[in-house]
Amino acid sequence: MKSKNSASARTKRSAADNGRRPAPSVELTPSDLLPRLKDQGYDRERVAQRRAWVEAKTGAKLAHIGSHSYDPEMLRGNIENPVGVAQVPLGVAGPVLVHGRHAQGLFYVPMATTEGALIRSYERGMVALTRAGGVETALLADENHIAPSFFFDAVAAAERFTAWAPQHLAEMKAAAASTTRHGKLTGLQCYQIGRQVIVNFGFETGDAQGMNMIAKSAEAVCRWVQEHYKNASYLLFSGLCSEKRASGFVITRGKGKRVTAGALVPHEILKLYLHVSAEQLLRVWQSTVIGHLQAGAIGYNAHYANGLAAIFIATGQDVANVTNAACGITSFELHPDGLYVSVTLPALTVATVGGGTALPTQREALEMMGCFGTGKAKKFAEIVAAAVLGGEISMGAAIASGEFVAAHELYGRNRPSEPRP
Amino acid sequence: MKSKNSASARTKRSAADNGRRPAPSVELTPSDLLPRLKDQGYDRERVAQRRAWVEAKTGAKLAHIGSHSYDPEMLRGNIENPVGVAQVPLGVAGPVLVHGRHAQGLFYVPMATTEGALIRSYERGMVALTRAGGVETALLADENHIAPSFFFDAVAAAERFTAWAPQHLAEMKAAAASTTRHGKLTGLQCYQIGRQVIVNFGFETGDAQGMNMIAKSAEAVCRWVQEHYKNASYLLFSGLCSEKRASGFVITRGKGKRVTAGALVPHEILKLYLHVSAEQLLRVWQSTVIGHLQAGAIGYNAHYANGLAAIFIATGQDVANVTNAACGITSFELHPDGLYVSVTLPALTVATVGGGTALPTQREALEMMGCFGTGKAKKFAEIVAAAVLGGEISMGAAIASGEFVAAHELYGRNRPSEPRP
Amino acid sequence: MKSKNSASARTKRSAADNGRRPAPSVELTPSDLLPRLKDQGYDRERVAQRRAWVEAKTGAKLAHIGSHSYDPEMLRGNIENPVGVAQVPLGVAGPVLVHGRHAQGLFYVPMATTEGALIRSYERGMVALTRAGGVETALLADENHIAPSFFFDAVAAAERFTAWAPQHLAEMKAAAASTTRHGKLTGLQCYQIGRQVIVNFGFETGDAQGMNMIAKSAEAVCRWVQEHYKNASYLLFSGLCSEKRASGFVITRGKGKRVTAGALVPHEILKLYLHVSAEQLLRVWQSTVIGHLQAGAIGYNAHYANGLAAIFIATGQDVANVTNAACGITSFELHPDGLYVSVTLPALTVATVGGGTALPTQREALEMMGCFGTGKAKKFAEIVAAAVLGGEISMGAAIASGEFVAAHELYGRNRPSEPRP
Amino acid sequence: MKSKNSASARTKRSAADNGRRPAPSVELTPSDLLPRLKDQGYDRERVAQRRAWVEAKTGAKLAHIGSHSYDPEMLRGNIENPVGVAQVPLGVAGPVLVHGRHAQGLFYVPMATTEGALIRSYERGMVALTRAGGVETALLADENHIAPSFFFDAVAAAERFTAWAPQHLAEMKAAAASTTRHGKLTGLQCYQIGRQVIVNFGFETGDAQGMNMIAKSAEAVCRWVQEHYKNASYLLFSGLCSEKRASGFVITRGKGKRVTAGALVPHEILKLYLHVSAEQLLRVWQSTVIGHLQAGAIGYNAHYANGLAAIFIATGQDVANVTNAACGITSFELHPDGLYVSVTLPALTVATVGGGTALPTQREALEMMGCFGTGKAKKFAEIVAAAVLGGEISMGAAIASGEFVAAHELYGRNRPSEPRP
Repeated sequence: MKSKNSASARTKRSAADNGRRPAPSVELTPSDLLPRLKDQGYDRERVAQRRAWVEAKTGAKLAHIGSHSYDPEMLRGNIENPVGVAQVPLGVAGPVLVHGRHAQGLFYVPMATTEGALIRSYERGMVALTRAGGVETALLADENHIAPSFFFDAVAAAERFTAWAPQHLAEMKAAAASTTRHGKLTGLQCYQIGRQVIVNFGFETGDAQGMNMIAKSAEAVCRWVQEHYKNASYLLFSGLCSEKRASGFVITRGKGKRVTAGALVPHEILKLYLHVSAEQLLRVWQSTVIGHLQAGAIGYNAHYANGLAAIFIATGQDVANVTNAACGITSFELHPDGLYVSVTLPALTVATVGGGTALPTQREALEMMGCFGTGKAKKFAEIVAAAVLGGEISMGAAIASGEFVAAHELYGRNRPSEPRP
Repeated sequence: MKSKNSASARTKRSAADNGRRPAPSVELTPSDLLPRLKDQGYDRERVAQRRAWVEAKTGAKLAHIGSHSYDPEMLRGNIENPVGVAQVPLGVAGPVLVHGRHAQGLFYVPMATTEGALIRSYERGMVALTRAGGVETALLADENHIAPSFFFDAVAAAERFTAWAPQHLAEMKAAAASTTRHGKLTGLQCYQIGRQVIVNFGFETGDAQGMNMIAKSAEAVCRWVQEHYKNASYLLFSGLCSEKRASGFVITRGKGKRVTAGALVPHEILKLYLHVSAEQLLRVWQSTVIGHLQAGAIGYNAHYANGLAAIFIATGQDVANVTNAACGITSFELHPDGLYVSVTLPALTVATVGGGTALPTQREALEMMGCFGTGKAKKFAEIVAAAVLGGEISMGAAIASGEFVAAHELYGRNRPSEPRP
Repeated sequence: MKSKNSASARTKRSAADNGRRPAPSVELTPSDLLPRLKDQGYDRERVAQRRAWVEAKTGAKLAHIGSHSYDPEMLRGNIENPVGVAQVPLGVAGPVLVHGRHAQGLFYVPMATTEGALIRSYERGMVALTRAGGVETALLADENHIAPSFFFDAVAAAERFTAWAPQHLAEMKAAAASTTRHGKLTGLQCYQIGRQVIVNFGFETGDAQGMNMIAKSAEAVCRWVQEHYKNASYLLFSGLCSEKRASGFVITRGKGKRVTAGALVPHEILKLYLHVSAEQLLRVWQSTVIGHLQAGAIGYNAHYANGLAAIFIATGQDVANVTNAACGITSFELHPDGLYVSVTLPALTVATVGGGTALPTQREALEMMGCFGTGKAKKFAEIVAAAVLGGEISMGAAIASGEFVAAHELYGRNRPSEPRP
Repeated sequence: MKSKNSASARTKRSAADNGRRPAPSVELTPSDLLPRLKDQGYDRERVAQRRAWVEAKTGAKLAHIGSHSYDPEMLRGNIENPVGVAQVPLGVAGPVLVHGRHAQGLFYVPMATTEGALIRSYERGMVALTRAGGVETALLADENHIAPSFFFDAVAAAERFTAWAPQHLAEMKAAAASTTRHGKLTGLQCYQIGRQVIVNFGFETGDAQGMNMIAKSAEAVCRWVQEHYKNASYLLFSGLCSEKRASGFVITRGKGKRVTAGALVPHEILKLYLHVSAEQLLRVWQSTVIGHLQAGAIGYNAHYANGLAAIFIATGQDVANVTNAACGITSFELHPDGLYVSVTLPALTVATVGGGTALPTQREALEMMGCFGTGKAKKFAEIVAAAVLGGEISMGAAIASGEFVAAHELYGRNRPSEPRP
């Protein structure tokens, strides 16, 4: 499947001439660039026009991508240069019984994935937890962060700012509030490194993931600072807040919701439904903790990322946030009656408003759990934690009992298949 | 949106009675469990039947989820309990000019996301790189890992095994080869920790991501070991290989493809298309590296996770692998003619066969880049690296020039919207 | 040099008999144990008696170890089973000119080391900084941590404690105050992980390192909790506070003093005294930051550990604390007039009272900087940071200029010497 | 204790004038610099002369520092600007019974520390291990690393070097061998990051720590490369090898000796000598592993740093290496007969020749274990690991039984003492 147009051909030739050296410059013709369409091109016709352009340019047929069940005008604000949709298989796992402050009852959890056996694995764990009496959950913190850097001439100047900033939190809160009703600046902490001062701002973001909202808010704060503190240049991002990355900060300070879920799984449930003993699961836990330590991993868990990615895709979350959300800690502890199991996710950045949550399939998936819209984010976080716990015990049991490969043989696509007709 | 059935109501009552204490045990009725359908229920009718069951159970309407453009029988092996698809908005960024060993020419990159401004940001960077003469790429390693643990009575017994294992690589290769034509055991390394020995097996996996394939293969090896080495009990996973997690091991030893991409961006391109100077970008790089160090992050980059998640969803990759793939290192270096920029991804687990790559929209997305099927994974890896580099310079420039928030205001959905009608 | 006594011989035989298997049990005779002497044996005579016992037991002569210049009774509280002293070579580096809030003026820094070229390297950097106008320092935080774990039946019970604990800080402060006049509980933060709650207590410790003091204090707090909160079992240590280890927590939350030091080094100083340009040093910084990222290191610096270990040994600090204290961030930034250089140490656990600070040579070393006794710890921390900055620029320059090996050839012991006569 | 000389006073005034701004430059008079003495001043007279100079300059009396039991000429190569010695209290812990390949028998371990209760704690653990039948040890790897960076124009040029370098290992070995008989280049691995290539060289260093030796050797290799590969500029250090720092690389790839030590401690030994049950120790292990995970720590252990620092000071090791050596993994596992305990140290950089090992007290300390000189480093590493294991179980038991604070009250100096007369 080769690119067909002349620009590409022209380029490849020059690359060949130069021994893989880039040509000093490349002149792109307008026809190489994606078409710029009226009003950014979100109506059906223009999306089709763009799709046709891509088909012509690349030789690929995009029939399935072009098959969506709703007006693409709805995509405005969620994507640019739309040509259609990726259809990601969506299944359901559950039920899981949750005893939380925000979520209570039996839930069925939508998961969008292409990894065979994943849903079966989570389902098995969730059902076992439910039979065990259900999962207790607790939402321990709810704060998003953004951390601009301020720059000064020298260490002493930076120190003065480090002392000044916390004293002006009230004014900063007012500046932040001028940009949004939904986000709320709650506090700040300065990290001075030489003559650079990173200010980590904490925000409440309600039911939104809120990163764009608080970026706007933080910029208003930074401008206020610049007006009131001489010679404070800044950059809006320092990386400290660890949006979309794994870090010690994410584990220590969190990001979005910090949530934990736990359950006591009795011996007979372990045996009947997971085919393991408590001692076997402890052995898996201990030996894989040691594997994580040997790996120098951030946190410890079997596969939060699997469950989170599937739920995030299904429900319109920012999927890149899986990188921070998957940093957490699973614990298995012997108990006279069985095994106490828990998961703790310090950086679960989930939303029930904003982002992709209102797109048609995503909204439906949230509604499956009664989690669409305002006032639902904490409930959703608790359900996610309970589901993730199901995945942890199921994976642990599969490893302990030696069933892992067999399960993937049965449910999965355990070999690279040839292209289908 | 409440659950309506009696089991759920019953449960909530008991939870209330117990002050959030889980009931000692819960009896699930068959009607609480997802329906078990004939032949696992992948035909259209049974998928619809399951969907109706979920609708009845949860009160949600799943009309859009039920709208897919292909026979759900194709989902077999990719998902269980299917009820339909998540439709994730798919757009196109590019072109990016790539000078690699495996990828050469102009490419348009499909990205599935719900995050407004993301594609515009990547597109801007990719076009700037192309105008700058294109991106050099290099594929530096291609090996996946799986790391079982073996257990012994004591340190000395484990040491004997640690000495024995590397001497029997040839037999282990044969055992591995008995399970697959596609994966190939290439080597092993023992990490003894006390009386536990983690053996990290390296595999070539061709064009597949290969984790299930090599799990099966590794199990065959472990069984061979058990037959030939007395008292070697094992567990198939130790966590060392860091599948789907961030770790020092991922950075050091990699996972899947290790790939790098770089370009020299001349001063005038920086100014005209990215609205920054080389010095400004260096300042962003330095100050955000410091933010990452202060955060205790694994690796350093602006937002690999964003681009990777969008491409992974579009092309049928295992999206949970974003957690390892996003561990990498971006570098910006002053150069007399401009700025030399590069990205290095030590753990880019991408595939062009297997997993979700053959599903209809995913296959189309791969075809857009000429990357579907056998012999294309290395090409795909190089294109991904080039695209990711585009995202890095664009984000850096947005931070440097203060345009970040403005761009999100223009293209994004910068406030939690109310539920749409 | 073999052990001579029969117990040892007996043991070796049994080991041989068992193929390196440990004998099922070993009966130690009283003569195998170190002698238990009257009043624990700190007087000159008994120290000599113990030394003679060790000599007899091991065949080693301990003449130099037995040569100390003061009454060993002073060792009580600092060591058990004393046989004498290690004489560690002590030299002086400096001067370094410090402009801090607590330290001001020219300082000469004592360093105890056996690594040739180390002092010369630090001295060169310190003198260059002084010629450049001196070093600004800032002490940004001063808090030590201890983090007990509390255990509960289940997640919900742990959550209730997590909510309860911060509301009883006042009573906990009182309980803490009952054990010490010097340490002061300043705050707490709960980290719930499943049904375990780690409570990180922050303490002011005045001029002491304070770990033992706050352990005692925290135990009093834990006992108070147990008396006032039903079913709260605890362990005094969780490891969270990262005493004597490297961690993300140490970087984020610190330990002891957080201190930074910076200086603008003009071009001509760089050239004349360090034989490098600003651009060369930036290149070293950038390329070694990348090396650290590739290594998955905690923090970034050239060799804090060298300077800290030498100063800690000289001045009676707890040398094991070098592991946390060496976690920090060095920054080199281009400046029109030269290079702005800084170090930031978030976990500098140093003391001027308690620990080994009052031992004769250690006290003298502290007095060399006017840093012995009450009210001096912050001053000392600032001097240490300035000295460490000297080491960073000197090492950077040695790498940049290619002088590293030459310097070690000149000053060091660059080959394993034969045992000296 | 103030500095008395006029230069210092002059400086302080100018600092005051400038509001803590550094003066634009400071003119140091020759009298501010440490005296440059004939032949670098290692003879008794000149050491005394320097000491007198420091006393005059700082007002401190250095009588005890000046008390050393040997000719300071011996300090040449170990330190510059010597004024005497730090006398660090030295005690003995043990015995510990070791069943290793290199160390066999009962050993008494010298430890130099100022931390009360430390030796008692290690002794208690070592004796318990001995009564339990002794400690098995295994030396699993022995390789030091140094990792220069090479720089190229662009990614493709760097890739060519990455391919070229491993093919010329033989020539590089020859170049390395030209500088030393003791170090031996054994292999290399390239880590390309953009256009920078870090080459990690592995060396055997015999019984020396070897860092200076291999730096010299690696420089010879780099020069050979420069002569044979056009346009390969380099810097000798990249930081990758993680000398004197904690990192994922240190855990994964090691540094110096990788050594493990383990023992089965029967129930009655746990009870009689450590006052705990196996279950209690497991609980400490599990809950503190979780604390380490919550902290984002590198590795897991109770307090390797304490034992290592004390042994390193006593025996003339490079004490700054404690930062890498303390990165390791402790494991406690339930066993029908008791508890299996182990430590694993992947980066134990210890030597029995070179560095400070031949200084009088350090040599005596090594001789106490029969570990001085050629052919003893592996034996020493095994003893160190066994001693460290003693410290781990003793600390674990103190935490489990609640005796930690009591022990420090009894043996330690649990409050900042006033300066002694």
